[in-house]
Amino acid sequence: MTDSPRRAINFNAGPAALPLEALERAQRELCDFAGTGMSIMEHSHRGKAYEAVHHEAMDLIRRVLGVPDDYDVLLLQGGARQQFAMVPMNLLSPGASADYLVTGTWAKQALAEARLIGTARAAANTEHDGRFTRIPDTLDLDPSAAYVHLTSNNTLFGTQWASYPDTGAVPLVADMTSDLASRPIDVSRFGLIYAGAQKNVGPAGVTVVIVQKSLVEAGRDDIPEVFRYRSFAKTDSLWNTPPCFAIYMLRNTLAVLEARGGVEAMAAAAERKSSRLYALIDAHPDFFRCPVEPASRSRMNVVWRLPTEELEQRFLAEASARSMVGLKGHRSVGGLRASLYDFVEEAWVDALAELMDELRRAHG
Amino acid sequence: MTDSPRRAINFNAGPAALPLEALERAQRELCDFAGTGMSIMEHSHRGKAYEAVHHEAMDLIRRVLGVPDDYDVLLLQGGARQQFAMVPMNLLSPGASADYLVTGTWAKQALAEARLIGTARAAANTEHDGRFTRIPDTLDLDPSAAYVHLTSNNTLFGTQWASYPDTGAVPLVADMTSDLASRPIDVSRFGLIYAGAQKNVGPAGVTVVIVQKSLVEAGRDDIPEVFRYRSFAKTDSLWNTPPCFAIYMLRNTLAVLEARGGVEAMAAAAERKSSRLYALIDAHPDFFRCPVEPASRSRMNVVWRLPTEELEQRFLAEASARSMVGLKGHRSVGGLRASLYDFVEEAWVDALAELMDELRRAHG
Repeated sequence: MTDSPRRAINFNAGPAALPLEALERAQRELCDFAGTGMSIMEHSHRGKAYEAVHHEAMDLIRRVLGVPDDYDVLLLQGGARQQFAMVPMNLLSPGASADYLVTGTWAKQALAEARLIGTARAAANTEHDGRFTRIPDTLDLDPSAAYVHLTSNNTLFGTQWASYPDTGAVPLVADMTSDLASRPIDVSRFGLIYAGAQKNVGPAGVTVVIVQKSLVEAGRDDIPEVFRYRSFAKTDSLWNTPPCFAIYMLRNTLAVLEARGGVEAMAAAAERKSSRLYALIDAHPDFFRCPVEPASRSRMNVVWRLPTEELEQRFLAEASARSMVGLKGHRSVGGLRASLYDFVEEAWVDALAELMDELRRAHG
Repeated sequence: MTDSPRRAINFNAGPAALPLEALERAQRELCDFAGTGMSIMEHSHRGKAYEAVHHEAMDLIRRVLGVPDDYDVLLLQGGARQQFAMVPMNLLSPGASADYLVTGTWAKQALAEARLIGTARAAANTEHDGRFTRIPDTLDLDPSAAYVHLTSNNTLFGTQWASYPDTGAVPLVADMTSDLASRPIDVSRFGLIYAGAQKNVGPAGVTVVIVQKSLVEAGRDDIPEVFRYRSFAKTDSLWNTPPCFAIYMLRNTLAVLEARGGVEAMAAAAERKSSRLYALIDAHPDFFRCPVEPASRSRMNVVWRLPTEELEQRFLAEASARSMVGLKGHRSVGGLRASLYDFVEEAWVDALAELMDELRRAHG
């Protein structure tokens, strides 16, 4: 078809870099999927061609993440924000209370949304002067809570749960939007895991939900059918027309992820990529500053500051000149951020580290 | 890039045929959008490249459908089924009642979903022996209803509102999933219009909502933020990460629709395509039978039966041999169906009519 295009060096916080093989596969067959004379976008979601893609995507999620048989894999719409509402709608009955571990902006908004639906409390809150720079040491858990909700990785402030808390018999619900499939996890420790696909596993427009079958079965049935996990669990997520192309790209992306060694290989690469940047930052505290406590630092989103905002602007301009995109911190936080998701190449991180060090030598 | 592929003759009920130019445009730039070195799927939804596409899609909806300034255009997720819930969540307050015009399976399910949220009644119901074969003549409207809901076109049974009822001061809400942009409409007669994109205007994964600003403003604020029209109206539908690629394809598709003459040209073609089939069916009542009353027949979905199920199977086998897909009736209805959405070519309908007539001459 075409020569491989010049690739931007993409540190976007999400939607983020996808594997070129997954994109090229989509490009090759965009107008004619598997010799059918139709795009995958033109196939019926009830037809054999699309259904094979749909089930392969779900099988890949099971294999790549090691999902046990007593869990359902659901492919939904609306992003993590819709799960902020669907989790309490399904799992939080009148009279019950849910615990939320507030470690960042998204965790805080998940709690606010839950409070529009039922009773929810903050079982931890690390906010300090409007910022979140650490994962809590101690939790004030309610042993009778309907569930405990946490945000696995904090994209804005660059914190991440290195290991997950033990919540005993209370189901643990995790928003893994920004670190799903970046490291091995023991799914059996969770009641429910959800993730918008657009960081590590695909494009925007599809949400992965992994949920214990017993929680699906116990879910409330006085809510609209379209918001019940049960509707999608009993129909293999074909209850209504799914976001077919986003699921097709999720399939393409997970196939590459598996071929590259799966979550173990992704975790090792994330360790190398993030350590390279943190080591550089920590080696020059007079020039770089990471506001996050070392034990709470994210392997997915590295945030740092330079001595002045003017130097940060100079850094962004030079990065742009070198085809690097997505390095500006979130508008609510400022500073600099590099998102190092699964398909951010190690060579890109090398190029970034070189630029950071060049600027330090020139202005440090 | 590639030669034009052999195209299937696609009568799918949805997802449905898209214009080849829109697909080829996507194919050309799939790995490198506008020379940025990234796929449109890899761009930030807060970046200039994606935002231009996003706003062009919304502008095209306004131009193509003639949306007045006092209406918001929203791009949402979850399909029409999610609107079955979001409409009453936003517009149906405790103590109020909504009227539903039940003319098919989807209308019936919209009413059932509304009843899980508030008070709703059937102001018309044309169900007879489990089938829906006509649009009602008379309506039992409640002048104090919060809104009147109708389904503009019935994909399963092949009925369509030829003109819309006058609901006076009560806002008219229309599910136009299967006939949006197939004919000119006077948007100012509606309080709210919604449509999954996957029939006439794009791929699955994005829902178009056109809603009077005063209804958005009056919407309930005790529901989750993610389900409030207000959240999306005040942020140009960038409240959270949108389904970027589906919106990009909506843009590509609407650009072709506009270039081909807009909704007036689409309406004229739909009239020619559907009339060709209905004329053939009506000319041979001994062989073809359309169960729908003539005044209620859809220009989008033509349904018919043959004398025996065996002949229907033979017809489907011969159609398949001629690269025709999507002609089997909905699994809940049976028989035969041809969906004639905007991007079903007239030559395809000619080929279908020829096959129908050949079979009639051989077996009639």
